[in-house]
Amino acid sequence: MSASDFARFLHEIRPHIDTTLDRLIPAEDVAPQRIHQAVRYSLFAGGKRIRPALTVLTGRALGLEDHALLPGGCALEMIHTYSLIHDDLPSLDNDDLRRGRPTCHRQFDEATAILAGDSLLTLGLTTLAAEPVDMDGERRRAAVEMVGNAIGTLGMIGGQVDDLAAEDHWPDDAEAVLEAIHRRKTGALLTASVRLAGIYAGVDPDRDIRLSQLGDLIGMMFQIADDILDVEGTSGTLGKTAGKDAHARKLTYPGLFGLQKAKEMLDATRDQALEVASRLPEQGGLFPSLIHFLSTRDR
Amino acid sequence: MSASDFARFLHEIRPHIDTTLDRLIPAEDVAPQRIHQAVRYSLFAGGKRIRPALTVLTGRALGLEDHALLPGGCALEMIHTYSLIHDDLPSLDNDDLRRGRPTCHRQFDEATAILAGDSLLTLGLTTLAAEPVDMDGERRRAAVEMVGNAIGTLGMIGGQVDDLAAEDHWPDDAEAVLEAIHRRKTGALLTASVRLAGIYAGVDPDRDIRLSQLGDLIGMMFQIADDILDVEGTSGTLGKTAGKDAHARKLTYPGLFGLQKAKEMLDATRDQALEVASRLPEQGGLFPSLIHFLSTRDR
Repeated sequence: MSASDFARFLHEIRPHIDTTLDRLIPAEDVAPQRIHQAVRYSLFAGGKRIRPALTVLTGRALGLEDHALLPGGCALEMIHTYSLIHDDLPSLDNDDLRRGRPTCHRQFDEATAILAGDSLLTLGLTTLAAEPVDMDGERRRAAVEMVGNAIGTLGMIGGQVDDLAAEDHWPDDAEAVLEAIHRRKTGALLTASVRLAGIYAGVDPDRDIRLSQLGDLIGMMFQIADDILDVEGTSGTLGKTAGKDAHARKLTYPGLFGLQKAKEMLDATRDQALEVASRLPEQGGLFPSLIHFLSTRDR
Repeated sequence: MSASDFARFLHEIRPHIDTTLDRLIPAEDVAPQRIHQAVRYSLFAGGKRIRPALTVLTGRALGLEDHALLPGGCALEMIHTYSLIHDDLPSLDNDDLRRGRPTCHRQFDEATAILAGDSLLTLGLTTLAAEPVDMDGERRRAAVEMVGNAIGTLGMIGGQVDDLAAEDHWPDDAEAVLEAIHRRKTGALLTASVRLAGIYAGVDPDRDIRLSQLGDLIGMMFQIADDILDVEGTSGTLGKTAGKDAHARKLTYPGLFGLQKAKEMLDATRDQALEVASRLPEQGGLFPSLIHFLSTRDR
């Protein structure tokens, strides 16, 4: 199965994701207009929608219909966008460019960007707690708890804190720290996107563990490929400032292991992910295609 | 009934609120330690715990026990603390002092303060969705939706956005804008603290409306008293920089109406609140005392 199957799926599901997001977010002409403009500027900035796509893809493989999966998946996209807006701020990663456009605080201002991030986090968690309306209440509750852990101080926020600390000086055990950072900073929300569908489907703990493993491997692939792109890409193809990581002395896979070794690690992680996916029902549905899609350099 | 009854209640309930918060927040020695230190620095900074106290006070008047009210009330205290941390940031209100101590970004740094606020918002909403464990799931869901609306772009965040915009130039209809700002920026979360108990108790829409009215009036009293304090207090008694509002040309009640008129408005709002409270069961329990407590200048 080639990467193009997943690309086709992404192309097919994307309008449904955008329609759902549009329903959940106040329109630009609702007061205060500036904050809704900022929220929509960042949310509809051309992101690939990988996280809601992962939720839908996983849920379909588990026999669920899209309408049960889209609101929760979109809540994760809102949370992802909040984390990008806040990470880009001057006092954090200080990025001017995101997806080929000025970052939220450059386009609007810092206060608006902070509040736009806060709004998206609020809406994301509120959506998870409230939707889908006809979902069993215990599953919605489990979904919020799982996502809350994934994005809190023991997950995504914790990874960002350690990433900022590692910028000042690389720790002695850099390899372990690098993995621990990315497992939380990028990996936790990607894993949550996969596990969310499992919770909605009411899978048993065994399958939940397998979905977590797969999510972890996908998260790692994602990060290694991202780090490689930062070295090999240009700001044009990247849509963000190229070479930014090396400049900031960020702990990255190519920075720590060299470009060649990083590519070998990406391939090894891809093979592991393919192996785990093959043990899911129907050989993991579109998972193998997704894995090939993520492991190519030009996603 | 005098203000001292409420003060006694606050003294009695406070340790239970703090114990609940302590249970819900990771300890300072949990990694990454710095973020947990920052969260706890701001959360245990000597706040009066008015919001969880309001939830418990209202819930008791509706026949609920404290254990059903404390987690949700504490979730609102976390959300309140997140909003203070973010509002104090340099790009927003730029405050150095809060409750007599350096603000979170002054004590730690800006990045840590942004992430500490994010953590508290995440934990607050997650707690509301998940606790109390034995509460009917539909009531927990209604609680998250109500709070999500109260603190989102149509509520608290929207009020902050308009407040920042009004700083640059006072609008023509300053009186209406002032009320609209405070109704959302401070009032929405205070109203939510009262309504939360109503949702947990399963009150009918009529009583929910009366609780909302009472919450609105309490919120307005709170804000007028706060504005008056900013003019009359010193940084020592305030625990924050005195005269800050006038300096920033903030839209305030004394600024717009003069000190004397602002005090008259506070008294009128107090009388209205007392009237609404008197129509609750048992003449509103401790509500009259709370109202006297909030209307005195030295809370």
